[in-house]
Amino acid sequence: MELLRSLIFVPGNRANMLERALGFDADIIMVDLEDSVPPGEKVAARDVAAEWIPRLRQAGQRVMVRVNSLDTGLTRDELGAVISPDLYGVSVGKTESAGDLREIEGIISPLEIGANLEAGHVNLIPWIESAKAIVNVNEMAAALVRTVAIAFGAEDYTNDMGIQRTDDGEEVYHARSAVAIAARAAGIASLDSPYVAFRNPAGLRKDAGVARQMGYTGKFAIHPAQVETINEVFSPNPEDVAYARRVMEAWQEAEANGRGSLSLDDKMVDVPVVKRAQNLLALVDEIDKQLAARGRG
Amino acid sequence: MELLRSLIFVPGNRANMLERALGFDADIIMVDLEDSVPPGEKVAARDVAAEWIPRLRQAGQRVMVRVNSLDTGLTRDELGAVISPDLYGVSVGKTESAGDLREIEGIISPLEIGANLEAGHVNLIPWIESAKAIVNVNEMAAALVRTVAIAFGAEDYTNDMGIQRTDDGEEVYHARSAVAIAARAAGIASLDSPYVAFRNPAGLRKDAGVARQMGYTGKFAIHPAQVETINEVFSPNPEDVAYARRVMEAWQEAEANGRGSLSLDDKMVDVPVVKRAQNLLALVDEIDKQLAARGRG
Amino acid sequence: MELLRSLIFVPGNRANMLERALGFDADIIMVDLEDSVPPGEKVAARDVAAEWIPRLRQAGQRVMVRVNSLDTGLTRDELGAVISPDLYGVSVGKTESAGDLREIEGIISPLEIGANLEAGHVNLIPWIESAKAIVNVNEMAAALVRTVAIAFGAEDYTNDMGIQRTDDGEEVYHARSAVAIAARAAGIASLDSPYVAFRNPAGLRKDAGVARQMGYTGKFAIHPAQVETINEVFSPNPEDVAYARRVMEAWQEAEANGRGSLSLDDKMVDVPVVKRAQNLLALVDEIDKQLAARGRG
Repeated sequence: MELLRSLIFVPGNRANMLERALGFDADIIMVDLEDSVPPGEKVAARDVAAEWIPRLRQAGQRVMVRVNSLDTGLTRDELGAVISPDLYGVSVGKTESAGDLREIEGIISPLEIGANLEAGHVNLIPWIESAKAIVNVNEMAAALVRTVAIAFGAEDYTNDMGIQRTDDGEEVYHARSAVAIAARAAGIASLDSPYVAFRNPAGLRKDAGVARQMGYTGKFAIHPAQVETINEVFSPNPEDVAYARRVMEAWQEAEANGRGSLSLDDKMVDVPVVKRAQNLLALVDEIDKQLAARGRG
Repeated sequence: MELLRSLIFVPGNRANMLERALGFDADIIMVDLEDSVPPGEKVAARDVAAEWIPRLRQAGQRVMVRVNSLDTGLTRDELGAVISPDLYGVSVGKTESAGDLREIEGIISPLEIGANLEAGHVNLIPWIESAKAIVNVNEMAAALVRTVAIAFGAEDYTNDMGIQRTDDGEEVYHARSAVAIAARAAGIASLDSPYVAFRNPAGLRKDAGVARQMGYTGKFAIHPAQVETINEVFSPNPEDVAYARRVMEAWQEAEANGRGSLSLDDKMVDVPVVKRAQNLLALVDEIDKQLAARGRG
Repeated sequence: MELLRSLIFVPGNRANMLERALGFDADIIMVDLEDSVPPGEKVAARDVAAEWIPRLRQAGQRVMVRVNSLDTGLTRDELGAVISPDLYGVSVGKTESAGDLREIEGIISPLEIGANLEAGHVNLIPWIESAKAIVNVNEMAAALVRTVAIAFGAEDYTNDMGIQRTDDGEEVYHARSAVAIAARAAGIASLDSPYVAFRNPAGLRKDAGVARQMGYTGKFAIHPAQVETINEVFSPNPEDVAYARRVMEAWQEAEANGRGSLSLDDKMVDVPVVKRAQNLLALVDEIDKQLAARGRG
């Protein structure tokens, strides 16, 4: 699976920001046609976006486009304008049911054929950002083969619930947890809402850490200064990697001696603990491999 | 939608308390035939309640009656005694499935016809107060058109789970959250359990604040002294209203200048933030309008 | 219902530990063929386990065996080796759907017939320990009549979610709560994950207390030193019993005087509070009865 730790929003109508995005260190450049583009510029933005996708790709970026939600009437034309060989995938806001996703499939699939792309080339990230979507999240996560991740949109969600956001995020704990679990159950990635206080790196680190501990595998950025922190939080940390190596050594020794369990630092080490260590070390290898392939190792 | 911020329980067998309720400032007077009426007085209470409904209505109150649950065998007769033009609706305790609600519909609907009332005149508030109801809550919230809200009953719920209640309510967080989300997904109101320590106004304010931050739109009161606090907590607060006005001004200015996003106090202001501000200001207008109509503006 | 407060794991390949288990004070001796038995000893362990089941039973213990999960290919043979009149039941790890449970039913049921046991003699405890199982937990809890409890496996669950365990367990709150609620909704017991830091009795007491406040009715132990604490936490505590007795007295007095509600220590006492007191006192009687029957009262 491709890395999806950090995804940075770039407004689709701003050529100067798209140009800066050529050098961003995020796993995905998410060209936005939705919330960061004013109503009057939506149509122009889709052409600007279409023009920048191949340039970004050529600079080694993986590019996605977030289009406007089904109820705007813009979705079909925007997808038509951007789906192309250089596009990694698309993201659609405010999806609320498996039915919404099947409607999106009905748009993407013919466009994929029309563009001579392999079935499934266009990866999809739907946004879960209303109470209704939370109620349907398990079904949504499993609805389409092309869904590589689901994203939790805390601003729209709290909006829908009529609640105020706080920095510790207690008010979204239930919904935010449900999204991470639904994603994992469906075998896809889960992406956390952006942290909007973009001049508060400590707040971002804490918020990303909470998301990671809920099972999220990545997070959106709204400012390039957020990318490094997000990449760091969603990569294995050195202490965990060192501990995982110790677990594997102790386990191999115990196994050689015919014991099925052992203790390390006064905690039981059994099969689940060993599996966690193995998974972590496998992820470390995968990140190294993909970063090397991007020439950024 | 009618305001459902505060709903005060008044025992259906106590004429003196029903008389005091003529002047209560709650959005709903909930005449109770269930937990606050002793077994021996259930039958007498329904006649007392029926007698007071028109008087309360004439005093400008919106009146509902909470009847005993289906398993008591009392539900049908109690509904028959109280359904009338002056009644805003009924509430039924210990409902556990969409099937229970369809059974209740089968009782209410003929009574509504018999009383020459328009279909849907009798609004319904089912109680979610067991593990089984939590498991079924999404289906229950969406089961009947006449359901205007679902209520979370923490005492019966913790009873069913065999857990002790604490003042911070950590033990009900999961179930309580699920109720608010199910309600919002179905487009109805959610009502929080009463705060039983009725001589602790600070505790009430905190508990109501937690509920509001979960997405609850109102709360039950068991004592008239609780109503003012509940109304206050479930109405927009002045700081939020002031901030919403600033957001709208900044946004209109940004839009006039063709920008789709801006920052205010170092936080991103985009479409979801603007929508929240709009929703809040609309709620302020709605409350003013309804309180004016009740002559209490 | 039989007591299921404490269930202690004993490795199925270790005769010396099985012998010590003759005197353990746990409600269930859980002979483990899964995570605590090394791969090379799985086959030998099932015969050791089969040999010790009648001995443990004769010593007054209730015995269950945890077998390896369906994907290992070992499940059928292990169940075949251990199902017998002296066995209280079996536990299966890593079950993820109602379909998995029906597959297990298809193995157990003929073995039960073959061993001349009454239908339903073999009680079942499936483990909920992945995101997929959490998504399916309500259906799983209700799938089979022979299921007496579901167990939450935090190590495997956090493994599956790719998250680190912490001592306060915040990271598993959502999933852990869902398991307790699903169990209660299905009318069965819920068993919490073992606390792995077995030399930290204060940590165990706290962790068990959190589980109890979520609605769990029991917990696994990995070391005999943990059993006493677990039994204590999952039995009613003396203060609660004393308070329940006061509630019942005050209520009976109020009822005699025709009042449906009263206050005790400035809190409302109504029907739900009274029911809680009754349930608690009934549980106290049940524990006394069962411990007396085991000769340990």
